Amino acid sequence: MSNPTAAMLVIGDEILSGRTRDANMHYLAGELTKQGIDLSEVRIVSDDAPAIEAAAKALSETYDHVFTSGGIGPTHDDITADCIARAFRAHIDVRDDARALLQAHYDNSGLELNAARLRMARIPDGAVLIDNPVSTAPGFTIENVHVMAGVPLVFQAMVASVLPKLTGGSPLLSQTLRVNRGEGDIAATLSALAGAFDDLSIGCYPFQTNGVFGANVVVRGTDGARIDVAMTRLAKELQL
Amino acid sequence: MSNPTAAMLVIGDEILSGRTRDANMHYLAGELTKQGIDLSEVRIVSDDAPAIEAAAKALSETYDHVFTSGGIGPTHDDITADCIARAFRAHIDVRDDARALLQAHYDNSGLELNAARLRMARIPDGAVLIDNPVSTAPGFTIENVHVMAGVPLVFQAMVASVLPKLTGGSPLLSQTLRVNRGEGDIAATLSALAGAFDDLSIGCYPFQTNGVFGANVVVRGTDGARIDVAMTRLAKELQL
Repeated sequence: MSNPTAAMLVIGDEILSGRTRDANMHYLAGELTKQGIDLSEVRIVSDDAPAIEAAAKALSETYDHVFTSGGIGPTHDDITADCIARAFRAHIDVRDDARALLQAHYDNSGLELNAARLRMARIPDGAVLIDNPVSTAPGFTIENVHVMAGVPLVFQAMVASVLPKLTGGSPLLSQTLRVNRGEGDIAATLSALAGAFDDLSIGCYPFQTNGVFGANVVVRGTDGARIDVAMTRLAKELQL
Repeated sequence: MSNPTAAMLVIGDEILSGRTRDANMHYLAGELTKQGIDLSEVRIVSDDAPAIEAAAKALSETYDHVFTSGGIGPTHDDITADCIARAFRAHIDVRDDARALLQAHYDNSGLELNAARLRMARIPDGAVLIDNPVSTAPGFTIENVHVMAGVPLVFQAMVASVLPKLTGGSPLLSQTLRVNRGEGDIAATLSALAGAFDDLSIGCYPFQTNGVFGANVVVRGTDGARIDVAMTRLAKELQL
């Protein structure tokens, strides 16, 4: 049986303008791989309502799970929750359960739950809240879409809240062989290996360090013994 | 007149599995911003032919320019050139101009231009080669799609080859104000500011450092004087 599939939707002008380098994608990719969920596609769109809505819809229809990052804070540019609600034709408003969480949090910290902060309690009908142990304002899951914060610390906490509830597959295992030869030298060997081990994925990632060309060959799969066999054969054929 | 739009398509299992953290997207985003081309969307897909072809087609139809990264090396998993050719129904084979470049390069370095390396001369009919001063094997431009390498050093060199040929728009300028107050405290002020300056984009990016919550407010636009005015008003309203 093949593993469940996933996509990620990153919402953020700050990444597309080059101001910020995304960290959440890399984190989520690693966590999903450990859990045996295949991250198959990532899309990054700007803070643009039709773009967010269309991407969420398309990804939700194509993959088993969709994880979003960004745009659920208290400011005017935080429009993700409303866009996701529209994508699923769900009603959205300040919801009592989310408001109660925020009220307790701000009472506790002596801050006012003002109109802006109350925006963070806007949750679509039918959605399940995602726990946020860092800063309380919850994410939510609606259908197969998990809507989470963009701040890395909060994003990571929400991923930790969501992932244990999902059915994973076989964790993707990998071994890497660093070869100090150009890709072009080893390509025929790799191609034959890929043909002989069609249950594994064989990737070749060239590097150049201080003028030396080389490649990391990565063998991935869910059966560790098969990976061992492929790696042993590869090392032998490359006479390493 | 609004700026030209662009999308990026990153091809790479190694990013989706969390093995590698993408660097090209962040680089391209910064370069496009300087040139006044708006990066509006990024998609990352795996080394899967139908996925690459479909994404290239969709992005090419939607944006003025598409930049791809990855999958044009000599190994079996390098399938980008063929996928892009299919997306445009263009014939693809080893092309004489690209072969001549590679032949000279490998003659020079005493290496054999073997079958694997010759794959890097597969260029669609009608495409224009993109210069690769780092490792010779060229990229190419077909229609509005610029097909480039995944190795960051090579990618950056190819971007430098391509960008000066494109018509840019007004460079996107930005100013950032760091505010040591929670987003929820300043959201109403920002919302009013965004309403008053609808020619600018006002973004708010929360951070948390050593338990202190704050936000970077970024005002973006193409008119530096307007950004100054907005920033002055913002600082005054926040009594900074």
